[in-house]
Parts: sequence; structure tokens; C-alpha cells
Amino acid sequence: MRNVLFIMCDQLRADYLSCYGSPWLRTPNMDALAARGVAFTQAYVQSGVCGPSRMSFYTGRYPSSHGATWNFIPMPMSELTVGDYLSQAGRALHLAGKTHFEPSAEATAAWRGGASGRSAASLLQGGFEVVCRHEGDLPTGKEDYRRYLESAGYAGDDPWLQHANSGRHPDGSVASGWQMRHAHLAAHVAEPHSETAYVSNAAIDFIRRHRDEPWSLHLSYIKPHWPYIAPAPYHDMYRRAEQAPIRRNRASEAAEHPVLAAYRSHDECRSFDQEDVVRHVRPAYMGLIRQIDDHLGRVLEVLEQTGQTDRTLIVFTSDHGDFLGDYGFGEKELFHDVVQRVPLIVVDPSAAADATRGTRDRRFAAAVDVAPTILDALGLPAQAHRVEGRSLLPLVRGEAADDWRDCVFSELDYATRRARHVLGRPRDADCRGWMVRTADWKLVAWNGYRPQLFHLAEDPDEFHDLGADPAFEPVRQSMSARLLAHQLTLKRRIAVDLDRIEAMTDNLPPGIHIGQW
Amino acid sequence: MRNVLFIMCDQLRADYLSCYGSPWLRTPNMDALAARGVAFTQAYVQSGVCGPSRMSFYTGRYPSSHGATWNFIPMPMSELTVGDYLSQAGRALHLAGKTHFEPSAEATAAWRGGASGRSAASLLQGGFEVVCRHEGDLPTGKEDYRRYLESAGYAGDDPWLQHANSGRHPDGSVASGWQMRHAHLAAHVAEPHSETAYVSNAAIDFIRRHRDEPWSLHLSYIKPHWPYIAPAPYHDMYRRAEQAPIRRNRASEAAEHPVLAAYRSHDECRSFDQEDVVRHVRPAYMGLIRQIDDHLGRVLEVLEQTGQTDRTLIVFTSDHGDFLGDYGFGEKELFHDVVQRVPLIVVDPSAAADATRGTRDRRFAAAVDVAPTILDALGLPAQAHRVEGRSLLPLVRGEAADDWRDCVFSELDYATRRARHVLGRPRDADCRGWMVRTADWKLVAWNGYRPQLFHLAEDPDEFHDLGADPAFEPVRQSMSARLLAHQLTLKRRIAVDLDRIEAMTDNLPPGIHIGQW
Repeated sequence: MRNVLFIMCDQLRADYLSCYGSPWLRTPNMDALAARGVAFTQAYVQSGVCGPSRMSFYTGRYPSSHGATWNFIPMPMSELTVGDYLSQAGRALHLAGKTHFEPSAEATAAWRGGASGRSAASLLQGGFEVVCRHEGDLPTGKEDYRRYLESAGYAGDDPWLQHANSGRHPDGSVASGWQMRHAHLAAHVAEPHSETAYVSNAAIDFIRRHRDEPWSLHLSYIKPHWPYIAPAPYHDMYRRAEQAPIRRNRASEAAEHPVLAAYRSHDECRSFDQEDVVRHVRPAYMGLIRQIDDHLGRVLEVLEQTGQTDRTLIVFTSDHGDFLGDYGFGEKELFHDVVQRVPLIVVDPSAAADATRGTRDRRFAAAVDVAPTILDALGLPAQAHRVEGRSLLPLVRGEAADDWRDCVFSELDYATRRARHVLGRPRDADCRGWMVRTADWKLVAWNGYRPQLFHLAEDPDEFHDLGADPAFEPVRQSMSARLLAHQLTLKRRIAVDLDRIEAMTDNLPPGIHIGQW
Repeated sequence: MRNVLFIMCDQLRADYLSCYGSPWLRTPNMDALAARGVAFTQAYVQSGVCGPSRMSFYTGRYPSSHGATWNFIPMPMSELTVGDYLSQAGRALHLAGKTHFEPSAEATAAWRGGASGRSAASLLQGGFEVVCRHEGDLPTGKEDYRRYLESAGYAGDDPWLQHANSGRHPDGSVASGWQMRHAHLAAHVAEPHSETAYVSNAAIDFIRRHRDEPWSLHLSYIKPHWPYIAPAPYHDMYRRAEQAPIRRNRASEAAEHPVLAAYRSHDECRSFDQEDVVRHVRPAYMGLIRQIDDHLGRVLEVLEQTGQTDRTLIVFTSDHGDFLGDYGFGEKELFHDVVQRVPLIVVDPSAAADATRGTRDRRFAAAVDVAPTILDALGLPAQAHRVEGRSLLPLVRGEAADDWRDCVFSELDYATRRARHVLGRPRDADCRGWMVRTADWKLVAWNGYRPQLFHLAEDPDEFHDLGADPAFEPVRQSMSARLLAHQLTLKRRIAVDLDRIEAMTDNLPPGIHIGQW
């Protein structure tokens, strides 16, 4: 394989793609990718939060291994990403869009020192070579797009907010996209100048410029993530369309788990608890997805025009889903499938993958599989002393994988969330939750609280929490045993690789002789 | 507290101290420490191997957190030790003796770069300010003592081996201490020039020189660790003394766990499987301990002479025990109490500890408690986002500790050991074992193999492995639940402290508004 195009959306629910079964929204270009590759129908992230989930995609490691357990919490400097591995191999992973990477204080100090043996890209950008970085309104990545908007004539001290993410009231005043009541308005930006167009253009330009050399690009859309406001014509495209029913069971909410009850105090849940809010927001969410789909078509067209389709591995996915009012929740974080399950499409142009094109693979795939899949596709070392996921290429190429995983895992650290205060937990309380999901069951273990248990085979909507039901203790024990087995195999010996381990084996340093008579 | 004296022996079994009940060997100075402080009778290390155990002492973290899972495997550069914490506070933890610290490749690169914001002591010495470093014959710490021996007139290209750790044959030729058949000989070094005397002298000189300022010193003896050879008169002191019986049950060895069976192929086990070898070696081991005890008396005397006894916290312990032929094993590593249980004496000179002086505390203490105990004694930040142990001072001061732990945990990674080859496991196989020990039970979980289970209340010698007995499945499940709960509370969010967590809580970056209608 010569090239890699790793496309990520932000907060895109799997069931909003028509190739994942949505009857409400058509996504022809995502569907076209699925037709050319394999769509993993049981793909799960390792955290329902942007930062930790992305670091798991980028490192191939679980949040409890890479350490970035919530947004704005950095990984230790010792953690490396697939971008670092590519640069070690003399290649590079370029970035157009969002990563949510946060440099640690030690990484910043090492970079200031200027001589740690690692590049600024590695220390400050998570191993990505930045074409353009776009983190919405976050200081870590707002300048590139701000300059672009200013050069395009958009005024104001914060054109991202005032134009790209706000509408206008009839009197011409700014209607902030942060307020969901404005979700029906058109963003005050020409669609070709919108965020989705901007990062797509950066990718298209990159693909054209690098047509004659091997390349790897992470095209990372910040949409359909908040603010829920779309440029014309997408703002109005689904305003009158039929919507998915709201997945809700108020009886189960009445006696729910204390951590979930605490989350209901969050602003996003207070708002999405109201059906009219949900109905008002969803059309904007759908429009933002359709806009990405249209621009995805432009990107794929350029790949084709420049003759690179047949030598480019494409991975299309999202960092997590979105409650959108299901269960009366907004945003994400918690362990329901609508948050944890994501679209994951892998297009391998090699002949070895011809037999699986257009198929749907129901085996469990995970965010941690993407980094090893990229390394595998490029023929680079597997970094097995660090990477905890597995390459998906054997599945995509129809090879035997008898010992493939039969469950997936995800994590949450809510220490920085209002829910901790609501629960009256001190700052040093361990506020973590741990999900293990098999085909039929989902267990969520909570430090300091009883577990949750759902029998997905009979209760796919996760309405009936069996976590406190004595009858299901054997199930909880077998699910807990899976969680323990998983914890005991996480990669903790990261400072030496397996070549070093083999060289050390049964081989003490010179002059050391233990145990001889 | 003004000063800290953190004394560690290497491979010292708890039951070889008279204050820990040994009828075979008198250790008057260790006993005197116990009389002045608290002797923890159930103190356990977090690994039965020098390197990982010491890194747990120094970081306050379990091996699966600090990452140095066997000797010569470095911690990631992001791991910090109690020495680093002291230097952050404008103090220092000085070193006389052994640490087994190995700098990682990234730490070495950062140091070469010379500008990572961390000192050479932090990057290359595990946070210790080196007075003298002595790692026996290891290149990481042999030069200081080599120069000392040369200056004292000892000839040869390796005076450590040829003099300090070897005897002489009647014909005057070198009888290497590495060969246990020479354990009865006197080391060919004057006792005042031996390793134990050398590091004691360094400590005594340090204590005298720093009498007028606050200080912290890690006095770390490499003995009674191999080679088992002692200088006169200690080589002969116990040659005719009564020895402890060899703890052995050949019936249980006949059907033992595959990992234990594989360990029997190691040289040290082949040798210690023979009773005459055991009987020949133990007197040297006992002599080396008595030698340390005598020099410990010198150190404590200088502390008293310089008027620092009443302002110095003393911690005395060992990094692990030694099989010494029990179970037919030599060395350490495995999870038997003779390896995992160590002496741990804490002498707190403050009046608050007067009520506990001379008492024995049967609550579980752990190696990871030492770093937080030192931080607590010096009134320094607890580093609760990283440190996994607890300060022992509340126990030593007789304060309420109702929620004190009721079990301890230890780990082993045998990936670099011959046992892995004997078991036919590939280099990428997960070769880890995990112990959880309560007052009555010990479970050892092995990745890839059945667990071991011992009912210590009825089988204190750990002869009868109930790991495969169906009748004890409920016990295995409850012990596994403890191991899972432990794993789920290990500290993984190490790049930000709890002040930062509190500041972040319910507080998004400026301009970000999620969830508002």
C-alpha cells in the first residue's frame, strides 16, 4: 500500500448513515465507500469522549494505558501515536482538521529545551505533521481557520463563532450556534467557506500536491459535533423530514444508576430531556452529516482523478456517537450503544480484499484497531509492546482469524464533570466506569457504585438495568471475569520492544552468573 | 521531620531477623530499630524481582503502573520517583548504594539533548542525587567501588569479583563467589573494604557532613544478595550453626503449576533443589546479614552522636526475600511468602509515635507505601494523582485508619526468563502473573494458565494448590473480584495533578458552551 487516508468525523452516530441502516438520511458517498470496502457493523470506541477516544485511535491503546482519560487531559510524553511510528519509519502522518491532542507539561518543557530527540510535531501535535489544524473554537487549533475566514472577508473578533457557527436574527444580530434554539438558522457563512468545506479543501489540495509520492493523511472533520448549526442549504434540508423515534423509557429512568442520574444535571441533558429541543436540533445534525457526505464525494473524486484510488487505504470512522435525546440524554460519554458504537469502513484497494468488497462484518472492531491497521497496510513494525488493538486487514482480506475478540471494552473518567459534584465525591475520588460488551450482554463496572448489566439479546435498547438483580449474579461474574482478563493483558512494559525482550531472554549481563554450584 | 534515612537490603528474608522471629540468627541492631519503632509483620513487596520491586518502592506505584516489569527494563521517562518529588520541593534524596534504576532510551536522549527541563539525576539516576552508586558488578554502578578498591590496593581488572566476591583456593587461585561451592570461603577482601562496609562508610560520612542541614538518604545495601560469599569473620560465623528446616513438600511439587515447573529449569533452582547446596550456602547468607546488622549499628551510632536521632525518620526494609531452597527453589520472583514478605520497620522519632514504639503491626503494609510515607513525614504534597500506596505514618502514630487495606498485590513478568522458552511461549506472549493475598487466602492469576490458590489459614507453608479444585471456585471468584477492583483503581491519569482536576471540573474552556437551549 502506498497511501493512507484516515477519515474521522466527530460525534457521528453509526445509525445516521444509510449504509448502516438509517431510513431517515441518505449518505451516498459513505455508502459508496462501504460498497468498495468492508463496513464493520459492531465497531466500538474505547471512550465516549473526544479526547480519550481519539488518543485510543491514534495510539492503538486503551485510555487506561495512554492516560488521557478526558478532554484536555494530556497523555504522558512517553506515549507515542501512529504518527510517531510513521515518522520513525521515515514517513509522516499529515493532519487536516481535528485531533484534540494536548501536549503535556513535560512535552512542552522538552520542546522548549529543543533537544529531547523528538520533533515539535511529536511533542506538541501528537505525531501529526500539520497541514491545517482545526479544533473549532479551541485555542489549540483555531488560528488556521480564523485566518482563512478573515482572508475571505469575514469580519469580527471571532469569525468562527460569529459567522461559521452562528445564524442571524431578523434584525441582523448574531444568533449564537451555541444556543440550540438557533439550530434551524443557516450559519452566517457561505457553504464553501464553512468548516467542513475548509478541511476538505485542505485535504484535496494535499492529495493533489502529493500525487507523485507516498503519503498518509488524517482528514478529521469537527462536524457534526456542536454547535448544531449548518450552512445553507444544509440547515433546511431535513427541517421537515421524518426523524428517528426518540429512544426512551421513563420507567427505567425513575430508578436508574446514581452516576446516570447525576449526569441528568448537565446542561446538555437538561436540554435534550425536552422532545421539542431534540426535534429542533436533529435536522441540523442531519444536515451537517449530509454536508460531510457531499464533501467526502469531492475528496474521493480527486483521489480518483489523480489515479490514487487503487493505492490508497481508506479508513472512515467517528470518534463516538451522540445521544440526541435518546434516554433523555444529550452529548455522549456514557456507555449506551448510541454513543459507543461508530461507523467503521475500511477500503483496501488490494486484490486480496476483492472478495469482501461491499460486505458487512459483524465481528467486534475497536478504535484501537485503526493504528495497527495503518501500520499493517504500510508494512511497518506492529509496535506490539505498546499497541493493544489488532490489524483489521486479515478480516478485510478474508483471512482466518479464529481467535478474534468476542467482546469490546470502553472507559469513562468523570472526575472533571459536574456529575462528580452532584454525587458529592471529593476530587481524589476514583470516578471511573468500565464497559465490557459481548454480543448478548453489556456490563458497566463503576468504581464506588454497583455495576449496570443489560441483556442486549432481549433488551437491545438498554432500558432494563439488571445490575442489582440477584438472579443475574452469575452473568455479572462472567462479565467481570472478562473485564479482569482484559485488564491483565494491557501493555504496561512500553519502554522496550519485543526484539529487546527476546535478546534479554535467559541472558543476564556479562559477568553475572546466578545459581551455579 | 527534618531528615529521612531510608535503608534497604537486597534479598533479605523477613524470617532471618530475630525481631521477626528467627531463632537461628541474632540481629541486635535491626531489633533495636524495631524496639524504637513499629515492625510491620505483614509487609509485602509488589514484585519478587529487584528492579520492579525497587521502582515500586521509589515511585509508590505498582509494576503495571510504572512499567519496569523486570530487571533491566526501564520505566518510561514520564514516571517520577520520591527523589523527583523531593527535588521538586527544593530538597534532594541522596543515594549510597543500589537502586537498580535503568534510564530509558528516551530519557537518555533527553539528557543528551540537555534541555528537557529535568536534571541528569532525574533522567539517569531515578531522581537520586548520587553520593555513591553501587550495583555490584553491573555497569550502571560498579565504578565507584572499583576505584575505592583500587585505591585501597586491590589489584586485578575486576576487583569486585576477584577480591570482594571471591575466595581463594589453597593454591592461591581465585575461587569465584558466583560458584556456590565457594560459599564457605572468606571473601578475599578485608572486611572494612567490603561492599557492606563501603556503602555504610559513605552513609556515615554523609550523615556527619550534613548534620547541620535537613537531608534525606537512601542507604541501599546490595547484600545479602548473590554472590553468597562473606568476608571474615562473617564467612565462618554460622558454618556450624543450626539452620532453619527446608520448607518442602515433594508430593505437591509432583503436580505443580506449569509456570512453577518451568522455573525449576533455571540454574538457581537446579542448584537449590539439592539439600547439600542449601546447607552450604545458608551460613554465608546469614553471615552477610549479620555483617549488615553490625554496620547498621555504626550508622545508628553516628546518627546518635551527631544529635540527629530525634529528627530523623528511619525506614528499614528489603526489596524481596529469597527461597534459599524452600520448595526446591533458589532466588526469588515467584509468589511464595518467603519471597514476597519483607521486613519493614518504621521509626518515627516524633512524640506522636511514642505510644507505638516497640509494637508489631499486623496490618498489611506494602512497598508502595514507603514513598508516600516519606512525603508525609516531610510534609510534602502526596502526589495522589500518581502514588498508589498510602502513608504508614497514621498507623505508626496510632491514628484511626478504619479503611486500611485488607489485602496486598504483587506482579511478575517472566517474558525475559528461560521459563518462557521452557513453556514454549513466543516472545509476544503475555507472561505475567498476579498475586492477591488476604489474611487467609492467596490467589495467583497467570495469563494463559489456570490460577493458583492457597488457603493460608490452614496451609501457611503454601504446599496445597487449590487452584484447580472445583470446590473452591467461589473463593477464586471472590479473590478475582479483589484483583479486578485493584486493577480498576490503579492511577492512569498521571499528566495532571488533582489541583488541575478540581480547576477543570464543570469548567469548559472560555467560549465553549455545550447544551444550552
